[in-house]
Formats: sequence, structure tokens, C-alpha cells
Amino acid sequence: MDDVAARKGRSKNRAGERAARIQDVARLAEVSTATVSRALATPERVSKEARARVLAAIARTGYVPNPAARSLRSQKTNMILVVLPDLANTFFSKILHGIEETLFAAGYGMIISDLDGSPAKEAHFAAFTAAGRVDGAILLNGHLFGQSRDGKGKPANITVPLVALCEAIPGADIPQIGIDNRAAARKMTEFLVSLGHKRIAYVSGPAANVLEKERFRGYRDALRAANLPFEQDLVIPGDYTLETGVAAGRQLIARANLPTAVFCTSDEMAIGLIRTLTLAGVNVPTEVSVAGFDDIEFAAAAEPALTTIHQPRRELGQAAAKVLIDLLNGRPSADRILLETALVKRDSVAPPR
Amino acid sequence: MDDVAARKGRSKNRAGERAARIQDVARLAEVSTATVSRALATPERVSKEARARVLAAIARTGYVPNPAARSLRSQKTNMILVVLPDLANTFFSKILHGIEETLFAAGYGMIISDLDGSPAKEAHFAAFTAAGRVDGAILLNGHLFGQSRDGKGKPANITVPLVALCEAIPGADIPQIGIDNRAAARKMTEFLVSLGHKRIAYVSGPAANVLEKERFRGYRDALRAANLPFEQDLVIPGDYTLETGVAAGRQLIARANLPTAVFCTSDEMAIGLIRTLTLAGVNVPTEVSVAGFDDIEFAAAAEPALTTIHQPRRELGQAAAKVLIDLLNGRPSADRILLETALVKRDSVAPPR
Repeated sequence: MDDVAARKGRSKNRAGERAARIQDVARLAEVSTATVSRALATPERVSKEARARVLAAIARTGYVPNPAARSLRSQKTNMILVVLPDLANTFFSKILHGIEETLFAAGYGMIISDLDGSPAKEAHFAAFTAAGRVDGAILLNGHLFGQSRDGKGKPANITVPLVALCEAIPGADIPQIGIDNRAAARKMTEFLVSLGHKRIAYVSGPAANVLEKERFRGYRDALRAANLPFEQDLVIPGDYTLETGVAAGRQLIARANLPTAVFCTSDEMAIGLIRTLTLAGVNVPTEVSVAGFDDIEFAAAAEPALTTIHQPRRELGQAAAKVLIDLLNGRPSADRILLETALVKRDSVAPPR
Repeated sequence: MDDVAARKGRSKNRAGERAARIQDVARLAEVSTATVSRALATPERVSKEARARVLAAIARTGYVPNPAARSLRSQKTNMILVVLPDLANTFFSKILHGIEETLFAAGYGMIISDLDGSPAKEAHFAAFTAAGRVDGAILLNGHLFGQSRDGKGKPANITVPLVALCEAIPGADIPQIGIDNRAAARKMTEFLVSLGHKRIAYVSGPAANVLEKERFRGYRDALRAANLPFEQDLVIPGDYTLETGVAAGRQLIARANLPTAVFCTSDEMAIGLIRTLTLAGVNVPTEVSVAGFDDIEFAAAAEPALTTIHQPRRELGQAAAKVLIDLLNGRPSADRILLETALVKRDSVAPPR
């Protein structure tokens, strides 16, 4: 890369010193100017040692390459957009960690878009992506830009590669990375059945959610396989938050006939439910077993420690980033990746009395 | 903004249709082309309604403005870097939410840099920032690029505005936003003293951490004010994680003489400690009171619910973003903002027996 700013003589920084040139960086790093350019534009083509020296020299000298000029030449932004439904939800922390570390290792930065239920934000980020401000996007929000969750509406005209993570986007012709939610929910329900439970309540996610539909199918699969009747009044609506777990607990306590086990389709709901039952004097797991889903940080520290489905969140983030990088480099990439879940047995589930 | 790409006739998209021009967007949105330009370059100068129509029309037509050409003219990236020590830590979720929503409302996007203890990542993002790839940065990592935590080393030559959030950076000439950690720790210790506790253990953060130093001062202030002796062996080292809370619990149980109260300087440590005591048959709060710090999501759902210091995390993120935006617009801005904390009394603290 040559240095438009320096050639034009735009050459004083705030302190009045001469602005650093690419030559200054090269001299300090003891490499050629071509190596400095490559370290910035195509870091994978430079040795780690040389790159570290160049970056240190840039930081020391305050050298400012002209990113716009560089971008005009390369047509690349080296930025990836990550679209979240709700950044405040701690479930995403480890997923973002996995995405970021993988993108960084490949020379990409991560821009966060938190939709937060705002159509205006969604329209903005759709336009932002369509405008080529990023090289690709990872969607954790369960739908394409411009479409509703059920696939209605015309998708925005996006030409950069997209990948769906965690929440599958049915019908979208993009790679999808996640877990087998149906199989995981079936596995947990079968475990409860194997302990002798016959009346197993189910606390659901939001009705329109793809994850919810799959998990509910898995719950019913297991009941059917065990010849247990499906009872509609054992299905309690939730939305994955702590608050709806508390509400589900209150609803259960008000009933004459408690189920012996409750399968909550998120750990947050399970923790809220357990706390509500405990405060009402119902012992978990002696009187009611409670299972969760996700294996968030606090599942192991909950009281009692939560029996749940472990989702490999960091690995999910890494896998999605890797598929996107493959697409960007024209390498063959998987259309669909399902990572393994594990049933983690802790203390919140026991055989019925 | 005019449309370099369209004027040059770079004009077929993948489907072979003519690429959309700014005129197509203007026609569909029923605004002038100048309004389309403004909606992208200076959104604050366009009404919300017009902007929404323009964004919708851009998404519909697939219009691609040339961001590099635009950036060359404006010298702005409209991007802010947020530097985190550890993205996997759920403490940051709500802070990031507050930052993102405030930046978005002002027309800025958020790029995440997760340092993750890697000097190579730090050098990269220092160079990235020095190179003007972002318009400013919010530092949550407790030190300037190029310096150690204790202020040693020459800071990188960064000319864009910086703001420090949560972890103050002593000696750095940049605005600092956070809470009064010393006063908050004193408040909690005084509360424990007021209930009659005389032997109050303290589970610390990492020794080099600015937050830790302040909180430890607050703990000692309260002991001194109450004429209680400071006992070095009641200080148990931790690093804010659940695991060190568990380790602190084990250390306490092994002692002949339990303190009647333990002040943990993070909720994660408090939750790990409570679980360890409970499993060992020590009742919280009857035998030992345990207090936390932060008021994370699970503090209220812990068993027993955690008495802690509430940090207004979303508001902290909003405040830091606002100060940075003020700096970017040449408006007067605060040098130092301390947001109020609150002592939240729940069930993990009681008077000693």
C-alpha cells in the first residue's frame, strides 16, 4: 500500500510534529515498506514476528494509513456484522467471544448490531449491510433482513455472505450453524421418563420461535415413545427469561396436582421456577424435579445445581465465524453444521417419590 | 452524496439487473436525492420519517453507496471501538447494551475489541485506532494502549478521543466514567457493621486492579470508622470469578473460627462462596452473612437472594457513549462522571446470632 496522505503532504499532527510516513514505520520495524503494506492489507501473508514489529512501530510512530484510500483499492472492509436480538442477554457473551476470536485470527473485526426489537434499527443495519459497509454478517436473530420470522416479506437485497447461527432461518439459502434442538429436548425428556416421571410439565419459549418449535417437538417425541399421554395443561408459556420462570412457578403452585418434573427450555426460566417453588416450600428435587436448557454460567452455581442441556456456545461462535471466512475466501464451506449437546446431570433432578 | 459507483457505470448486480442508483432510492422514498445523501451521511439532519423511508427504499432496491468514496470526503468512519478485557464475562452485557443504543441513536456503529489477555491483539487494536479506522474508543480495560496497568510505558500515539469506563485509568488525560468504588464498598461494610458484625472477611479482586484498590480502601475506611481491628487473615484473595468464590469458601470452612460476615467484591464470587458454605452445612445468612458487589442478573435469583451493591450498568454504558459523542462534536463534556450505586438488601445478610 502506498500512502496517499503522506504523498499529498497532509503532514502535521496535533502536536505540530511531522506526521509519520510509511517509511518511518518500515525503518523502525526493520522491514521494507512493502511489508508494512502487506501487514495491514493482507496480514496472513506476513510472518507473525514481522507483523508484530510493524504493529508496534505503527503504535509508536502514530502512523495513519488512509483507510478510505485503502478500502477503495481493496473493496474490502475487513469487518463482519453480528446481528443480535438482544445484546443485554448474557446467553450471547460466550458466543460473541467465540466469534470475535475466530474473526480476529483471520484479520476481521466485529461490528455489533443489537436489534432490540426496533424496526428502525433493523432497517438501518439492513441498509448498512446492503451498502457494503461490512464484508459479511452472522445472524443470530432468526430471520433475514426485511423478512418476518415466518419468512414473510421480501428479503433485503444483500450481496455479501450471510450465516445463520443458533436460531435457524427456515427457507433461507445460507449456511446454518446450531444444535439439534429437537434431539436435545427429546434427550432431556427421555432422561426424566427414565427416572420414573410420568407427569412432566414443559415451560416453553416464545411461540413464534424456531428453537421453541423444535424443542417442543422433542418433548412430544419422548412422551410418545414412552406411551405417556400429552396433557395440554402441562404446557406453560414462557419466553426464556427469569421472569417467565417465576410466573410459571406461581402458576404451578396454584394447582391442586403438581407434576413430578418440569422441563424448562432455558436455564433462566429453570432458575426462576426453582426459586419460586423453594420460597413456597416445595422442595426441588425431592418433590418436583426441574431441568433446564443451555448450561449458562450460573447453572452450576444454582441451588440446587441445575441439570441441563449443555450448548457449546464458544464453539458455536467459532464455527459460524469459520464458515463465513470460508465463504469470503471462496473456499468450500458447510451448508449446515449441528454441534453436539450434552446432558449435564447435577442436583435439580431426582426420581419421583 | 453523489453516487460514484453509478456514475462510473459499475452497474450490474449478481442477478444481472441494473444496479440501483441514488435516483431510484429517492423516487421510491419520495424524497430528493440530497435527502437520501443526508440520511446516510448526517442522519441527525433528516426527520425520522424521511430517514425510515430512505432506509426502507435502500433495502428494497439494494442500492450500494460507495462507502470508501464517502469516507474519503468526510474523513469520518462513524465507528467507535469498545475495548473489553474479556468479552465472555457476562458483567459487560448490559454495559455494551447501553453503549450500543446511545451510539446508534447518534449515528455511530460499535466495533468490539476483546483483548483476552493477548498482547498481539492489543497491538493490533492500538494500530487500528491510531490508523483512524474508528472515530473514537471507549476503554473498559483499565489502561491506555501501549501502557501497563500501573501507567508504565509510552502510550500509543492515538489522536482520536478516548473515554475510560468502569475501570479508571489513573493519570490518563481522558474523561473517566464509573462509580465511586471506595464509597460503595464502605457503604456495604458499614451496613454489615450496623447489624452487629465485628469479624467481617473481605474477598478481594485481582491485586493490580484499580477497582480492587478502591474497594479495599472503602472496606478499611468502614472498619476504622467503627473502631474495629483490621485482621489481615480475614482478607482472602480472589479475581471476581465464581471459581475464586468457591476457593474462598473452602478456605473459610477449613478454619476453626468462621467470621460472621463475608463481603465479596463481586456477585460471582459471592454466589460461589454461598454455594460452597451451603454444601458444607453452613447456613447463609444464619451462621454467616454474605454480601456481593455489582447486582448482576442472577443476584436476585440466587438462593438466598443476594444482598449487594447495584451498579447501573446500562446507564454507565450510555454515559460513556454520550461523553464520547460530545467530544466528537466539539461540545463541552464532563471530565469525570460518577454514577450513583445503591445498597440492595435481600436475604443473604442478617444480624449475627
